Amino acid sequence: MRIGVLGTGRVGQALAGKLVSLGHDVKMGSRTAGNEKAKSWASGAGAKASEGTFADSAGFGELVINATGGHASLAALQIAGADNLRGKVLLDVANAIAPDSGFPPELFVCNTDSLAEQIQRAFPDARVVKSLNTVNLSVMVDPGTIPGDHVLFLSGDDQDAKTQVSGLLGSFGWPAERILDLGGIASARGPEMYLALWIRMLPIFGPNINIELRRRAS
Amino acid sequence: MRIGVLGTGRVGQALAGKLVSLGHDVKMGSRTAGNEKAKSWASGAGAKASEGTFADSAGFGELVINATGGHASLAALQIAGADNLRGKVLLDVANAIAPDSGFPPELFVCNTDSLAEQIQRAFPDARVVKSLNTVNLSVMVDPGTIPGDHVLFLSGDDQDAKTQVSGLLGSFGWPAERILDLGGIASARGPEMYLALWIRMLPIFGPNINIELRRRAS
Repeated sequence: MRIGVLGTGRVGQALAGKLVSLGHDVKMGSRTAGNEKAKSWASGAGAKASEGTFADSAGFGELVINATGGHASLAALQIAGADNLRGKVLLDVANAIAPDSGFPPELFVCNTDSLAEQIQRAFPDARVVKSLNTVNLSVMVDPGTIPGDHVLFLSGDDQDAKTQVSGLLGSFGWPAERILDLGGIASARGPEMYLALWIRMLPIFGPNINIELRRRAS
Repeated sequence: MRIGVLGTGRVGQALAGKLVSLGHDVKMGSRTAGNEKAKSWASGAGAKASEGTFADSAGFGELVINATGGHASLAALQIAGADNLRGKVLLDVANAIAPDSGFPPELFVCNTDSLAEQIQRAFPDARVVKSLNTVNLSVMVDPGTIPGDHVLFLSGDDQDAKTQVSGLLGSFGWPAERILDLGGIASARGPEMYLALWIRMLPIFGPNINIELRRRAS
């Protein structure tokens, strides 16, 4: 599959690297073609890896991943272009962290709205799916590194898009029964607000954590 | 121990009942003495149970529990009176659910502030501890009903107050190693915002759920 990964940071690099290792053709996108981090990644990741602008990356991908910083996501996607996103699954893994808000950071949107909803409203012809934002990059692409039946969440208005993302997450090592579908894209408010809890566990337990859902035996 | 439980709803009744069963003297508080739900509870709960106004309950308790609805908590505590709370541990279990915000509900405070912080600011001489708000009332008082090492969170500025609350939670069945101290009272923003995720799991998995923290083996 051809996949566009928007973002050259650690999350983008982890996802892009995993996707190439799984046999996908991946184009990493950044604000300007020839971005040093993107060039360095592409040259080290083999023949299936390439880089370009956000528009190059989104146009290339049959599926597009938003791995930009949350505060920069809408601007990055505008540069990527609505035409390059039309009809495509857009997997949004970003968190709505307000820049310069210290530690623990604040969110720039929550409660009555979410970043995922902002993206879906701005790009109504993209099929936005929110997932992976509740775990660290190394857990994203290697869930087996943590013991137990820890979970991911999935939000999106398009069921087929969620099925496609579930399949991709399955190839990362996330079993289908541990990917919890919360409903439409507005349900992303839940996992996005969970960041406020995750970020407060970070100094105590480190980044390589996740939660397992425990239920009363019926 | 003498404990004041503010609130006559299902959470207040569950906590008050558990506390009486553990041998504590419990006075349930409501807006007006002789509240029907409080009277009914007290008459059915034995000699260690009584009821009165918020002020009666707070004055009675060596430890006070805020089990009122989050939107009504500050008003209830004002009626209870700062003098009746001075120096006491005030365990806040409420969630900041905005009334009439539909389902899933919105929070009336989050992200840059929390209900627990609002309470601590309004009653600087009380020793506010936030806990228990991340689980349903039946899980609060009977954690063994759910399998696994699922956790609670603890936030508060006063370490001794948190130790006292941990002991009380231990008597409910919560082992100390499953009560995660997140830090000062501002850390309550995390567990309070987790409600947005919990409430979206509710229709799917029911109320008798909780999360276990999973960590990479070191």
